[in-house]
Amino acid sequence: MSDFNVGFVIFPGMTQLDFTGPFEVLSRLGTPPSLSAPSPFPDAKTHVIAKTRLPVMSDRGLGILPSCTFQDCPPLNLICLPGGAGVVDALADDETIDFIRREGERADYVTSVCVGAFLLGAAGLLRGRRATTHWAYVDLLPRVGARHEKARVVRDGNVFTSGGVTSGIDFAFAIVAELAGAEVAKAIQLAIEYDPAPPFDAGHPDKASEAAIALMMSRNETARANLRQALDNRSAPTSG
Amino acid sequence: MSDFNVGFVIFPGMTQLDFTGPFEVLSRLGTPPSLSAPSPFPDAKTHVIAKTRLPVMSDRGLGILPSCTFQDCPPLNLICLPGGAGVVDALADDETIDFIRREGERADYVTSVCVGAFLLGAAGLLRGRRATTHWAYVDLLPRVGARHEKARVVRDGNVFTSGGVTSGIDFAFAIVAELAGAEVAKAIQLAIEYDPAPPFDAGHPDKASEAAIALMMSRNETARANLRQALDNRSAPTSG
Repeated sequence: MSDFNVGFVIFPGMTQLDFTGPFEVLSRLGTPPSLSAPSPFPDAKTHVIAKTRLPVMSDRGLGILPSCTFQDCPPLNLICLPGGAGVVDALADDETIDFIRREGERADYVTSVCVGAFLLGAAGLLRGRRATTHWAYVDLLPRVGARHEKARVVRDGNVFTSGGVTSGIDFAFAIVAELAGAEVAKAIQLAIEYDPAPPFDAGHPDKASEAAIALMMSRNETARANLRQALDNRSAPTSG
Repeated sequence: MSDFNVGFVIFPGMTQLDFTGPFEVLSRLGTPPSLSAPSPFPDAKTHVIAKTRLPVMSDRGLGILPSCTFQDCPPLNLICLPGGAGVVDALADDETIDFIRREGERADYVTSVCVGAFLLGAAGLLRGRRATTHWAYVDLLPRVGARHEKARVVRDGNVFTSGGVTSGIDFAFAIVAELAGAEVAKAIQLAIEYDPAPPFDAGHPDKASEAAIALMMSRNETARANLRQALDNRSAPTSG
């Protein structure tokens, strides 16, 4: 069977865990941990794609080396967009949005983590879809023609969107189960000991204090305004 | 207050999520998300440390750019060792083990994720300690003088060790709570929407099928033999 190409598109100011989480899970499809029967899944190849091969810095200063560029990456079976404050500049970059549209239109799976959803949206890939994003930004989804569904991972057809940052890990297991079945997903889960035990239960607004939510919204006020403006500047997917 | 320097030591063949998870959490201490009162915590600076500044490839092919080297990194307040198959080669490298010993002996916190515990151990930092590591390797902990405690995150004095790969995220929140208090930890948890919802409950041997455990142990047979051999080759921390 031919390769299944998984591509993460990165850009300056992305939140690295948005894609390093799913990268860790999806890259393990490359040698399927089949149980009694061989995995029905072909070899997966993961690609980290950027405008150039120069290292790309995350919003918190981690440098990641792309493995290919918009020009030389293979056709993608799955495209994944991480989020981060850098989404604002990426939204203003026609080359990035054109690449997302080109690959997104032919990919088997179109996916995002956190505010990466707005990059899919700017490329016209969320029109008429149910979708999600980081909880503090869900009200902006209609600006790209999407309808918010309250869930950590939302599937609408071949489009998988997920919530803030760490939701990318849960999203990746949903993808693995879809591609290779539950047993393969469980084997990878055991391999990376994904048995989460957060010391606090405060990771969602439904569970957080009002003070913490207000602080987060206040700290994100500028980021939200910047994102709104960037989406207005690119109101139609063909405006670039 | 002076900076609090957090250093992740990376090496070829490390498992990237072992440190990108805690990096995402701990790097957010840099601008403490204080609530009503200012955070008692100083600015944290995160460093990604390697032998040279050349990109370091993970076991699954993700290239990470170090931010400093063993020679030019500042004294560390917290040192963190990720795991991965590359631990075997790192164990044979005196320069790496000497760096871990030097910084580990003066750091306020000595930490590891997954089989990174054996790098701390080879540097003599786990002698007489309760500790943990990836579930498939816990029987090897006595070889570095440690006693296995069954928990996702184990604290013994200033030494925090954690289980396989994804445990690093839970570990990081335990560290944040220790350094800056529960309210800061909860604010970061909300910011990265850490409200895990794995689609399966199979991330620990207690919850996995016998077939999945047997497969994992069989797939890790060579890795376990290599790790045992590397630990035997370096049986005393001053053997290098």
